[in-house]
Amino acid sequence: MTDGTTTDAPARTRRGRGGGGGADARRAARAKPQVVQMPAIQRSLKEFEVLDEEALSIIENNADKVLEEIGIGFKDYPRALDLWEKAGATVDRSEERVRFPRGMLRELIKTAPSHYTQHARNPERSVPIGGKSTVFAPVYGPPFVSDIEKGRRYATIEDFNNFVKLAYANPYMHHSGGTVCEPCDIAVNKRHLDMVYAHIKYSDKPFMGSVTAPERAQDTINMCNLVFGEEFVQQNTVLTSLINCNSPMTLDGTMLGALDVYAQNNQACIVSPFILAGAMSPTTVTATLTQVLCEVMAGSAFAQLVRPGAPVIFGTFAANISMQTGAPTFGTPEPALVLYGAAQLARRFNMPFRSGGALCGSKSVDAQAAYETNATIIPAVMGGVNFMLHSAGWLEGGLVASYEKFILDCDQLGMMHTFAKGIDLSENAQGMDAMREVGPGGHFLGCAHTQANFQTAFYQSTTTDNGSFEQWEVEGKKDSAQRANAIWKRMLEEYVPPPLDEEKDVALQAYMAERKASEADAFS
Amino acid sequence: MTDGTTTDAPARTRRGRGGGGGADARRAARAKPQVVQMPAIQRSLKEFEVLDEEALSIIENNADKVLEEIGIGFKDYPRALDLWEKAGATVDRSEERVRFPRGMLRELIKTAPSHYTQHARNPERSVPIGGKSTVFAPVYGPPFVSDIEKGRRYATIEDFNNFVKLAYANPYMHHSGGTVCEPCDIAVNKRHLDMVYAHIKYSDKPFMGSVTAPERAQDTINMCNLVFGEEFVQQNTVLTSLINCNSPMTLDGTMLGALDVYAQNNQACIVSPFILAGAMSPTTVTATLTQVLCEVMAGSAFAQLVRPGAPVIFGTFAANISMQTGAPTFGTPEPALVLYGAAQLARRFNMPFRSGGALCGSKSVDAQAAYETNATIIPAVMGGVNFMLHSAGWLEGGLVASYEKFILDCDQLGMMHTFAKGIDLSENAQGMDAMREVGPGGHFLGCAHTQANFQTAFYQSTTTDNGSFEQWEVEGKKDSAQRANAIWKRMLEEYVPPPLDEEKDVALQAYMAERKASEADAFS
Repeated sequence: MTDGTTTDAPARTRRGRGGGGGADARRAARAKPQVVQMPAIQRSLKEFEVLDEEALSIIENNADKVLEEIGIGFKDYPRALDLWEKAGATVDRSEERVRFPRGMLRELIKTAPSHYTQHARNPERSVPIGGKSTVFAPVYGPPFVSDIEKGRRYATIEDFNNFVKLAYANPYMHHSGGTVCEPCDIAVNKRHLDMVYAHIKYSDKPFMGSVTAPERAQDTINMCNLVFGEEFVQQNTVLTSLINCNSPMTLDGTMLGALDVYAQNNQACIVSPFILAGAMSPTTVTATLTQVLCEVMAGSAFAQLVRPGAPVIFGTFAANISMQTGAPTFGTPEPALVLYGAAQLARRFNMPFRSGGALCGSKSVDAQAAYETNATIIPAVMGGVNFMLHSAGWLEGGLVASYEKFILDCDQLGMMHTFAKGIDLSENAQGMDAMREVGPGGHFLGCAHTQANFQTAFYQSTTTDNGSFEQWEVEGKKDSAQRANAIWKRMLEEYVPPPLDEEKDVALQAYMAERKASEADAFS
Repeated sequence: MTDGTTTDAPARTRRGRGGGGGADARRAARAKPQVVQMPAIQRSLKEFEVLDEEALSIIENNADKVLEEIGIGFKDYPRALDLWEKAGATVDRSEERVRFPRGMLRELIKTAPSHYTQHARNPERSVPIGGKSTVFAPVYGPPFVSDIEKGRRYATIEDFNNFVKLAYANPYMHHSGGTVCEPCDIAVNKRHLDMVYAHIKYSDKPFMGSVTAPERAQDTINMCNLVFGEEFVQQNTVLTSLINCNSPMTLDGTMLGALDVYAQNNQACIVSPFILAGAMSPTTVTATLTQVLCEVMAGSAFAQLVRPGAPVIFGTFAANISMQTGAPTFGTPEPALVLYGAAQLARRFNMPFRSGGALCGSKSVDAQAAYETNATIIPAVMGGVNFMLHSAGWLEGGLVASYEKFILDCDQLGMMHTFAKGIDLSENAQGMDAMREVGPGGHFLGCAHTQANFQTAFYQSTTTDNGSFEQWEVEGKKDSAQRANAIWKRMLEEYVPPPLDEEKDVALQAYMAERKASEADAFS
C-alpha cells in the first residue's frame, strides 16, 4: 500500500464478502474500513528446537542442583517462607532463602494447567493460552512515549488510553496488555485503577492486572468482579498478570504479594525471570537457561502452593548487556538461543510459554529498531511462544512506547499470522491447472487460478511502500515511521469504543472514586 | 558501540590475542583495526522444515507431471535441443520446448556434486559450498547505488570497486559476489572485463562470473586462467555464477549459453528460478515450489548433460507481487515459506542450496528495509542456505545497492555466525560456579566467570547504538543509516588491497585491453 490512506484491516478480513469480487466489490470493500479481529494464531508449523535430549538433561539436572544447593530468595514475604516450610522445603529465615529437595518443585508444578482460556468481557475476544496457540500483547512498562512529531516525553493517561485504543483497533493484536505505558500524571498509588478502567472501557480484549502491590492486585480483581461477576471470576481466568523475578534467583515481596492474590483468585500469572545476561545471569546461554528454569520452577510452584491448579505461564525475558558499556542490548543472537531453549523447557513441563516481542535498543524508529525487532519476533513465533508480551510499540530498551513503532510492529505480527499457518496443500494450492494454462514463458497475472485467488493470495502489508521510486519521491519520500504516523492518527480519529453496559461503567467509576478518596496521592 | 569510531572487526576476532586481557590490552586491541575474516558458517543447528514427507511427495510428483506433460522452454539455443534429443527427451522444435520422461532428470542430476570448494586466489578465502556450510555474498545486479549524502544515482565502476572493497574488508562477508552493481559508465559489451578484474584486483575472496553472453563467460574463464593457471581451473571450481531461469518454465539462450560455457569448464552455476509469485508462478506456495523444482531440475540436468559432475546449486529467488498494484514485495510470509520448502527440496537431491538475503522493497534505509531484510535472512539461515546471494546492500527491490545498508546488513550477517553455532554445553558454558559464587540477589558483572568470559561472551554489534537517550541526543540523534555512513567511509579510507602478483596483474590488463580493442562500444 503506498497511499497511506488504506484501512488497517487486512485483505483476508474481506474474505467471503461479496462472493466473486470484481472491481466494484473491491472498491466498496476498500471504502468501508473494516476492523476485523484475527483470532489467536493456531500454529501449524512445528517448533524450532535448539536443544537435544542430552542438552535438556544437562540443563534440567543443573537446575535441580541449583534449587537444592543454592536455593531461591523469597524476600520480604514471610507468608511464602511459612508455606514453603509447611510443604517440606528447607527455609533459611535469616537469608530469606528456600532450598528445595530434588523433585519437590516438579511434583508441585504438576497441578499447573497446560492451557487455559483468558476470558475477555466480549466472549469473541477471549484467547486460548497454551498448546499451539500464540497470543500477542502490547509493550508493557515504558515510563515514556514518543511520536515523530512531539518526540519523547513522560507518558500520561491520555497516552495510555491511546495505546489501549490502538491495540483494540488492530486486528493482529489479540490482547490489550497491561501497563502499555506508565500514566505518570496520576499518583503512583492510584494509577492502577485508571489503567484497569481504560482496558475495560476502551477495549473489549483481555488484559493484565496490577502487580505493584497486593492491594492493587486486589483492586484489579474487584473491578473484574464488577464486570464479569464474582462467581465467574472465581471459576474462570479473566486476568493474566506479569510477575517478574528479581533475577538472579529471587522473588521479592511486591511480586510475591501480587502472585499470591492472583493465584488465590484463580487468576493467571506469568512467572518471568527478567534477565540481562552478563548482569543478572552468567554470560552463557546454557547457564542463563539453567537459571531461568530455576526461577520459573520456584515461582510457579509457589503459585501451586497457594492454590493448586492456579494458571501460570513459563516466562522469559532474555537480553544481554554490552560487555563494553554495560548497556542492555536487544535482537542479538544469544537471547534468540535462550528464547528457543526456554520454549523447549516450558514444553517439557507442559506449561504455556511467554517471551518478549518487538524488543530493540534503538532510540528511534530506524533500521536498528526493525532489525532487532524481527530478530526477536521471528524466533518467538518459531520457538512456539504462547503469550508474546511487548509484541508492538517497544522502543529504547523498553523505556519508550512508540506510536509509530506500534503500527509497524503490528504489521509484522500480521505477517506471523500467515507464516504460522504453514503451507496449504489443497488442490487449489497445488495450482496444476494454472501451470497448464500458462505454460513456459507466459505469465500468471490473468489466469483463472490467479483470478480466483488474488483477493486472499498474499499477506497484504498495511505499512510498507513497494511502489516506484518516482512515485515515492513525488509523495514526499516518506519513510516507514512517517507512514505509520499517519496511520495511528487516523486509527485514533476513527476509533469507536466497544459497547460497555452503563450500569457496570457507573459501578466501576464509583469503585475507583471510593478507592481514590481513601488515601492521599503518592508520587513515588 | 555508540561512538561510531570502532573498527568493523568483531570482538571475537580478538580472541586469543594478548592472553588474559586487562584494560591496556583492550585499548591496544581497539586502537589497531583488525580485519579478520570469519570462515564460512558451519551450522550446528538443524534446519527448520515446513514440509512433511507427504507434502514433499505431492510437490515432487506434481513437478514430475509438469516436466512430463507441460515441459520446459529452452529458447534460442538449438544446441540445448540437440543435447536433449540425444539424451532421449521429447523435443518440440517449433515451440523450443522439451518434455522429459518421468525419472530422466532425477537420473541425470545424480552426477551433480553434493558439495564443492570454490577456490579463491587466496587459499585462505576459499569457501565450502554445500552440506552444513553457509556462505554470504553481496547484493547482485542493481543499476543504481545510493548513499544518504549523494542519494540515488546510476552506478559507476568506482561504485563497483567500492562495493568489492567493502565486501573484502568485512569479516562476515565470505564472497566477493558478482555484479555488485552495474558499472553503467562502461560499455555493456565490455564492463564484464572491468567487473571480473575488480574482483581479482581489489579482493582475494571468491567471486562470480559474467553470464550476459557466452563469450563473456569465456572471458571470465580466460581471466581466471591467467590468475589460477589453466590446469587448476579445469580441475577445480574457481567461479560460481548465477543462471536465472526466465520463469515460468523457461531458460533463455543467454543463460543457457553461459551455463554451457561454465559447465564445460567445470565451473559452478546456480540454477535459479527468478520468481515473483502471482506473475511468474501461481499465487500459492505449493505451486510455486512445484515450479521452482521443475526449473531447477531442468537447468541442473542440462549442466550434467554438458559435463557430468559439473557443480550446480539449487537456486531460488522468491518474492510476491502485490495483487493490488503489481509491485514486487519482499520480506512477506509466503516467500519465507517458499524458501524453507525449497531448501528441503534441494536437500532431497543432495544439492547445495541458494537463497536471497537482505531483500526489501523500501526506497530508504528505514525500518521497512530492516524488517523485510531480517524476514529473509533469518529464514534463509534457519532453512539451511549454503549460498546466500544479496546478503548485504540490497535496497528498493534490488534496483539499488545501498552503501549504508551494506554495512548494516553485514552486522546482521555477523549475528548469524553466532546464532548458527547453536548452544555451547561445555562446563564453562554451564556456569555452575558463577551461580554458586553470585547466589540469589547478587550480580554477575564482577564474578570470576564473567571476568574469564567477557571478551568473547556476546556478539558485539558494530552498528547499533545501545547507550542512553541523553548521550544519543548529545551525539546528534544519529539513526543507524547515519552511523553506517561513517563506517563505510572509514572502511574505504582504511582499505588496503590484498597483494596481487605483478605479472598476473599485467597479463590481466593486457587481456582486457586486447578484448576491448576488438570491438566497438555497445551501450544496450
